[in-house]
Amino acid sequence: MRSLSSLLDAINDYAVDHPFPVTPPELYQPCEYMLTLGGKRLRPAILLMGFELFRDDVARALPAAWAVELFHNFTLMHDDIMDAAPLRRGRPTVHTQWNTTTAILSGDVMLIHAYHHLARMNDASTVLSLLQTFNRVATEVCEGQQMDVNFESRSDVSIAEYIRMIELKTAVLLGAALEMGAICADASPDAAAHLSDFGRLAGIAFQIQDDLLDTYGDPAKLGKQVGGDILQNKKTLLVLKTLEMAPKPDVEALLQWMETGAEHPEQKVNAVRAIFDRNDIPRLMAAEKKKFQEEAFGHLEAVQTAPGRKDVLRKMIEDLLERES
Amino acid sequence: MRSLSSLLDAINDYAVDHPFPVTPPELYQPCEYMLTLGGKRLRPAILLMGFELFRDDVARALPAAWAVELFHNFTLMHDDIMDAAPLRRGRPTVHTQWNTTTAILSGDVMLIHAYHHLARMNDASTVLSLLQTFNRVATEVCEGQQMDVNFESRSDVSIAEYIRMIELKTAVLLGAALEMGAICADASPDAAAHLSDFGRLAGIAFQIQDDLLDTYGDPAKLGKQVGGDILQNKKTLLVLKTLEMAPKPDVEALLQWMETGAEHPEQKVNAVRAIFDRNDIPRLMAAEKKKFQEEAFGHLEAVQTAPGRKDVLRKMIEDLLERES
Repeated sequence: MRSLSSLLDAINDYAVDHPFPVTPPELYQPCEYMLTLGGKRLRPAILLMGFELFRDDVARALPAAWAVELFHNFTLMHDDIMDAAPLRRGRPTVHTQWNTTTAILSGDVMLIHAYHHLARMNDASTVLSLLQTFNRVATEVCEGQQMDVNFESRSDVSIAEYIRMIELKTAVLLGAALEMGAICADASPDAAAHLSDFGRLAGIAFQIQDDLLDTYGDPAKLGKQVGGDILQNKKTLLVLKTLEMAPKPDVEALLQWMETGAEHPEQKVNAVRAIFDRNDIPRLMAAEKKKFQEEAFGHLEAVQTAPGRKDVLRKMIEDLLERES
Repeated sequence: MRSLSSLLDAINDYAVDHPFPVTPPELYQPCEYMLTLGGKRLRPAILLMGFELFRDDVARALPAAWAVELFHNFTLMHDDIMDAAPLRRGRPTVHTQWNTTTAILSGDVMLIHAYHHLARMNDASTVLSLLQTFNRVATEVCEGQQMDVNFESRSDVSIAEYIRMIELKTAVLLGAALEMGAICADASPDAAAHLSDFGRLAGIAFQIQDDLLDTYGDPAKLGKQVGGDILQNKKTLLVLKTLEMAPKPDVEALLQWMETGAEHPEQKVNAVRAIFDRNDIPRLMAAEKKKFQEEAFGHLEAVQTAPGRKDVLRKMIEDLLERES
């Protein structure tokens, strides 16, 4: 059982050994650039942890792990165009640094390269099984992104629809990473299914937590302005829950704030937060998160594997779900 | 050996039996719409003809054939955004009918669905072999599109570079279709390689012919205005050849016309065509096309298969290369 940092080292070594081609540079440099913005490599690490529930030779699963990371970065590159986002982690997005044509085409080739790495697994039946899981989840991620786009112009989004959107847009990829780790290890279909559910449900819990932290996190730990979602008038779970259950004056006040500019950001954040607070929204959301979290860990416990094998994975997901920012 | 129209029927039946999902409609309706603009289904038909060089049960190869057609339509949807093209075959492009976000995301899911159909082939080792070919050619098509984008802002494109661009952007997909047909039929690697070369070289010949017909075709048969490339100041092979070998006054005259607006389209087309004519460009281009065509058919003849098996494929490619518009 290797530590998270040891797994990240293995992933980064694989990435260094398998860079994008050099030519044409206009196509591939934006891909390499995107990977430098792309973050913590948690998805491939989680895939390897899924693999290590059953086997030790993680090198075997690295092509699949890297495929998941490339897929994630492809979605970020195209989503940034659709969201007209100028920055990612404080640096220019690809369509800002280059242009929209570049971000479309480099994103396309990044997706194709994800499949290229899947095909590098030695065994044909493993590749077919991975391909089926990968195609299913890639389709779901597109469907989730489409739901997110649709929600922007709708005022009647239900909480169930919102949770289904975050499930498809982000949570299923965590489930697929664990499922693919199990497939690489030739684990049983039953184990792969439980791991898929574990990742998917934990992924929903993460997203609920993200919504909560954006409004209630510790600014020092968050690394960004608290209340960003409020200032952008995002229809987060906090907003939807308030619209669903708060008394009419609070609903009207919230809707009014969401149509107000952010000339006085602190005032706006405090006012909206006060509406959430007096309707007990943070506690209700924390309970919702806990519900998904408990269901998730039930699936992890149901996976049949040798004692102690689950420790690294369980600890990492627990830590991620308990962070305060 | 089935006729082209019989193969097209089989492809269309497969498409009808395997539509895109219904929900979310904002994601999938543009995919179905794109397929109605997409044209003649020549690529999947060519794949099936490659298969029929060796086997009769074409139903076996239909998922791979449809994957190639979906891939082709994905590239059209994204290329239309990059080219800011308002129309395709006289109807609004997806980004015009909907918007750029839709055309990006629906294109993405269309590419993923191409892989979904590849994975529907029953045999794992066939899927792996198809996946390797498909990934290689999909990457090359992106590289060719990037070269095409780069050429727009360059004035020093050589003929060799231009031919390499059309080879990657369009010709390799014909080669891959034939190669994938051979793979579906469990043909020898040698046969698959000759078919790949046949399709690729014939594809280059097609593109040279397209450049010629756009300026010299019969308007009635062409179904569009003759001289469209001239009016759009496209750096076609005719232009590049003229720049390379015409005397200085003709080069300067051509460059001047290419910086001139098209207030008098007929005058501009006639003037540019006169420059091509007095430098013998049409004959030189026809000779270039013939060179690729002959090399292509050499590879077809080298494929080992039963007598008569090549007739349908040979006839179709010959007809396509001899059409006058």
